[in-house]
Amino acid sequence: MNNRHTTISFLSDYGLQDEFVGVVHAVIAEIAPHVRVLDINHNVPPYDVRAGAMSLTRAVQYLPTGIVLAVVDPGVGTSRRAVAIEVGGGRGYFVGPDNGLLSGAVAMAGGADRAVELTNAEHHLLAHGATFAGRDIFAPVAAHLANGVPLTEFGPLVDPVLLTPGLIPLPQESANGTQCEITWVDHYGNCQLNIGLDDVRTWGSPIKVTIGETVRMCPVVDNFESIGTGGLALVVDSYGMLALATQRGSAAIEIGIGVGDAVSLERA
Amino acid sequence: MNNRHTTISFLSDYGLQDEFVGVVHAVIAEIAPHVRVLDINHNVPPYDVRAGAMSLTRAVQYLPTGIVLAVVDPGVGTSRRAVAIEVGGGRGYFVGPDNGLLSGAVAMAGGADRAVELTNAEHHLLAHGATFAGRDIFAPVAAHLANGVPLTEFGPLVDPVLLTPGLIPLPQESANGTQCEITWVDHYGNCQLNIGLDDVRTWGSPIKVTIGETVRMCPVVDNFESIGTGGLALVVDSYGMLALATQRGSAAIEIGIGVGDAVSLERA
Amino acid sequence: MNNRHTTISFLSDYGLQDEFVGVVHAVIAEIAPHVRVLDINHNVPPYDVRAGAMSLTRAVQYLPTGIVLAVVDPGVGTSRRAVAIEVGGGRGYFVGPDNGLLSGAVAMAGGADRAVELTNAEHHLLAHGATFAGRDIFAPVAAHLANGVPLTEFGPLVDPVLLTPGLIPLPQESANGTQCEITWVDHYGNCQLNIGLDDVRTWGSPIKVTIGETVRMCPVVDNFESIGTGGLALVVDSYGMLALATQRGSAAIEIGIGVGDAVSLERA
Repeated sequence: MNNRHTTISFLSDYGLQDEFVGVVHAVIAEIAPHVRVLDINHNVPPYDVRAGAMSLTRAVQYLPTGIVLAVVDPGVGTSRRAVAIEVGGGRGYFVGPDNGLLSGAVAMAGGADRAVELTNAEHHLLAHGATFAGRDIFAPVAAHLANGVPLTEFGPLVDPVLLTPGLIPLPQESANGTQCEITWVDHYGNCQLNIGLDDVRTWGSPIKVTIGETVRMCPVVDNFESIGTGGLALVVDSYGMLALATQRGSAAIEIGIGVGDAVSLERA
Repeated sequence: MNNRHTTISFLSDYGLQDEFVGVVHAVIAEIAPHVRVLDINHNVPPYDVRAGAMSLTRAVQYLPTGIVLAVVDPGVGTSRRAVAIEVGGGRGYFVGPDNGLLSGAVAMAGGADRAVELTNAEHHLLAHGATFAGRDIFAPVAAHLANGVPLTEFGPLVDPVLLTPGLIPLPQESANGTQCEITWVDHYGNCQLNIGLDDVRTWGSPIKVTIGETVRMCPVVDNFESIGTGGLALVVDSYGMLALATQRGSAAIEIGIGVGDAVSLERA
Repeated sequence: MNNRHTTISFLSDYGLQDEFVGVVHAVIAEIAPHVRVLDINHNVPPYDVRAGAMSLTRAVQYLPTGIVLAVVDPGVGTSRRAVAIEVGGGRGYFVGPDNGLLSGAVAMAGGADRAVELTNAEHHLLAHGATFAGRDIFAPVAAHLANGVPLTEFGPLVDPVLLTPGLIPLPQESANGTQCEITWVDHYGNCQLNIGLDDVRTWGSPIKVTIGETVRMCPVVDNFESIGTGGLALVVDSYGMLALATQRGSAAIEIGIGVGDAVSLERA
């Protein structure tokens, strides 16, 4: 057992209203009592694989070496594959459904070395039903991996090339600027775009922002207090991306915008 | 001190809006620094003893051996008893109010061996008021139990037969089928019924479901993707119970139903 | 390294909707793997420094000796100071923005011995933007403090007298009684006032309560069950303060009141 891991980082869409997250912690504690579970985020919107993938991709660079358990799994109980993916020559593993949830984070971690399909029921819990794979399949596998069980014990190898890719919306160049999309509305109502500061660095500030019928001149700033009361700005957020933000308010609510909305940026 | 415990599993209706849960963690860390606190669920609806009892009963089979601390306690500060209950010959303890919250989980754990009323203030915190027994009585007792303090140090023995039972609604046979009740609406809007797959296994699929004026023919399925867009189904959930569910939507919202609503099942 | 700490207690307004809290845990785990992070509360209303200060002040007396990390920081990225404050001759540290958030808790912990401004970027993370100081500045500093790095390594000393004080609203004596304010509405809807039982102990019960146009005679009670259905009472809460409360309901919703509302108390 020379490949033990001490941390399982855990993301899901289970919410915190029920005992789902607690039960997964309990299953891990039973199988691998030495492990610390680090909760990344359990309020991914229900069934929203893309939102989960983006949250995980933002977080992964900060996670301790070890195992990542991620479950946003609308296809639970169907033929969608359950997988474990090895990265960094065995320094890390991602465990979850093969539906695109893991792909962005796996790429950030250097790409998949090997992957297996989790078909060996010996390492699962006996289940009363098929709807809680987090408890019955993914958590036990993550815990056994943390105990040093070799990857190939969990099922047959899958060619990493065949894993489901994630869908990340890319910004589109247009005649006058760039057509972007809101990819994330955070707790404060800041609306992250799929474009970074680097892409508009030569444009100067302000930038002309068009959202549906709304047209605003938005300064590019690096903190919220610089926005000014009543203003709307493009803040360089903590990932280097541009986010629509107001000062001490919710841009999402004030402008009436949300994830998936188109945002056009043009030189002023 | 040969009876130390390393885990305290903790359920409450404290919510996560205030510092209540954090303060209970702090009290435990102060008295028993070696203990890991496993949060089961803190979003039991305020004062809802039955919902708390059901959440705890669902979770208990997965919890590590040790101590369970559970607090949903509308009668805090009155003459309702505060208790600690021993199960499994001292392998586990349940600490909380004697109001039915613990009874289902205690039964799942094999039944009460011994119980004491928590009257010995020596093992409580000095309190400014009587409204936060979780902090002042239950958490300190759980932590001292984890340190190996014998059960009878906490107060006089209570006959386990006299502990308050839980109220679990049983389904009723009717002329044409079974009268059930919605006992839990989870984070996704799935509505668990108080009837298991075993009870309808011979009925075939679909089953006729009547909720108030709504009558639907619902297939019995074992995953959400089989439901089909716009459909309503009886899913065999992860506890082997039947739950009304839609595909990637909330059955509770779409049908307008909630906990306590009557649901009639009949052979189609 | 003779000044290591094992616990970092963590409060913020990050909410639990995103991965912010998880990422801060991850940053701490990376730098100081031996540390246990104790989550006090992450649902302080966004940007509400006073609410955060009050939650922290209520909790601090229960926290384990060690480090407190607190982040409610509308001025992030501006010239507002980031600080670490030493209390109890080095037994404890508070890390966060110097905006009044920490001051009440520091006072409860015996007052500031020394303070430094966190200008030494050697102990920060390299950041893509300036908006997530919790991840990039405060968490790394807290973790390095837990590892025993001396306070003065983090930046120049600041005279504790120059730290930003908190603003705590004091009750005002009036001709007929006392003019109070609602300082906290908890998860249950109980409305804490800025007045303790000691201040009205000689008044008898009930007390005349005026909120806007509403006038109610409220008994002073020590538990919720004594209130009676439909009643409104002044409950002695778990901090010895008076709180407007109903029985198994939300006083805030039933009376239509919230934080900052004026409440007048008079002898009946």
